[in-house]
Amino acid sequence: MALQRSVAQGLNGHQLGHELFHDCSGEARPGVILFSTVMGVTDLERGFAERLVGLGYSVLVADLYGRRFASEQRGEAMAAMQALREDRAGLRERLVAVLGEARAQHEIDEKRVAAIGFCFGGQNVLDLARAGEDIAGVASFHGLLDPPGLAPQPIKTKVAAFHGWDDPLVPPEAVVALAAELTAAGCDWQIHAFGQVGHGFTNPGATGAMPGIKYDAATARRAWAACDGFLAECFA
Amino acid sequence: MALQRSVAQGLNGHQLGHELFHDCSGEARPGVILFSTVMGVTDLERGFAERLVGLGYSVLVADLYGRRFASEQRGEAMAAMQALREDRAGLRERLVAVLGEARAQHEIDEKRVAAIGFCFGGQNVLDLARAGEDIAGVASFHGLLDPPGLAPQPIKTKVAAFHGWDDPLVPPEAVVALAAELTAAGCDWQIHAFGQVGHGFTNPGATGAMPGIKYDAATARRAWAACDGFLAECFA
Repeated sequence: MALQRSVAQGLNGHQLGHELFHDCSGEARPGVILFSTVMGVTDLERGFAERLVGLGYSVLVADLYGRRFASEQRGEAMAAMQALREDRAGLRERLVAVLGEARAQHEIDEKRVAAIGFCFGGQNVLDLARAGEDIAGVASFHGLLDPPGLAPQPIKTKVAAFHGWDDPLVPPEAVVALAAELTAAGCDWQIHAFGQVGHGFTNPGATGAMPGIKYDAATARRAWAACDGFLAECFA
Repeated sequence: MALQRSVAQGLNGHQLGHELFHDCSGEARPGVILFSTVMGVTDLERGFAERLVGLGYSVLVADLYGRRFASEQRGEAMAAMQALREDRAGLRERLVAVLGEARAQHEIDEKRVAAIGFCFGGQNVLDLARAGEDIAGVASFHGLLDPPGLAPQPIKTKVAAFHGWDDPLVPPEAVVALAAELTAAGCDWQIHAFGQVGHGFTNPGATGAMPGIKYDAATARRAWAACDGFLAECFA
C-alpha cells in the first residue's frame, strides 16, 4: 500500500488537492474517486480508501477545500461547504476537474473510474453524474440530494444511493424527487433506504454532531456490501 | 435434493398446501417459506427454491390456493388472489398457519425461519410481519404493499423489500407509506428501489402479462444478491 499526497492546486481561484491510495504493483487499477464528508479529508476517508485498495482499486480521495479541518473546527468546515454549495455550477467544474485528475494518475485505469461519496461527498458524486460525465458509476452514502438547479442532462452513469430514512437533512420527499429526477435522466439507478437510521451512518465519529446524525454499524455493513457489489458490477 | 409435496389441507374451509424442497442430509436447515406470485406455485418458484436449497436452506413453497393454474388461466388466478385479498384477517390466519406448517417440518430448524415472496407473495410476507410473528426476517420482491387495515402491531422481524420504481401496481406514495408504517412499527427495515424497472422483474414469464410488468435480468441479479445477504444476516 502506498500513499501519494498531492499539493493543493489552484482551480479558478480555489484550492484543490487529493490523496492517492494504491497498491505497490505499479499497475493501473480501476479507480475510485472518494469525496469526503463536510469535514473534508480525514482518517475516516483514509480508512475507507485503504479498504478499497484491498479490493483491487486505486483510490483518489478528493480534497475540495485545499485544507484540513480538525474535529473541533466543524463550524469552519460547514462554512467552507456552504461556500461551495452556493455556486453549484462552479462546484460542478471542480468535480469535473477532480475526475480529470483521477484519470491522469498512472495508478488508475482512465477508462474505469467510479466515484463514491459521503454526506456532502454523496452530493458531489450525484452532481458529477448530473454533469453528464461518462464514468462507470457513482455511489452516494447518506448524501445530500437536492439538485443543482442547472439544466438537466442525460445521466450516462449508473447511480446508487444509500440513505437513512430518518435523515433530518433529507426528508422522504427529497428521496422521491431524486428517484423522479434520475428516472427522467434515463439512467440505471438504485436507492437503498434503511429504516430507524439517520444521517452519517458510516461514520463512527458522527454520533452527537447534530440531532439525527448517528453511526450505525449494521447499516454501514449493509451499505458497504451493496457498494462493493455495485463497484464490481460497474467495473465488470 | 428432495421434494415432498403435501396434499392440500383444509383451513377454515379453504384449501392450503405446500411443496417442500430440502437436501438429502436428514438435517434440519434454516427454513425459507416462499410465497408465490398471483399465479400460485409454478416452476418459477420451484427454481427459486432449488437455488436456495443449494445455499443451505430448506424451502417450503406455500400453496395458498390449494390448486395449480396454467399460464393461460391468469384470470382465474387473479380472481383467486382477489378472493383472498378481500379478507385480510382471514388471509393473515392462513399465513400464520403456513408458518406453523413450516416449523413442523423435520427438515426445518423451527427456530430459524424466514419468508420471501413475489408479487402477491411479497404482500403475504409483509402481512406475516404485520401479524407480529417472531421470525428471522421477511423479504418482498415486487410485492403489493397496501396494509391490511387491521390494528397495527409491533413488527418483530427484519423486513426487506425490493421494488421496481415504475411498478404500475405500487406508486411512489405506497413506498413512502410502507416506510412510515415500518418505522412506526419499530422494526429493522430496508427498501431497495430500482429505477427504470417495473413489476415482476424476477420473473422471465411476466413480460407482456400487463403493461408495466417486465422481467429485468440485471435487477433480478441485484435483488437476489441483496436477498442472499439478508438471509445470511437473518440466520447468523
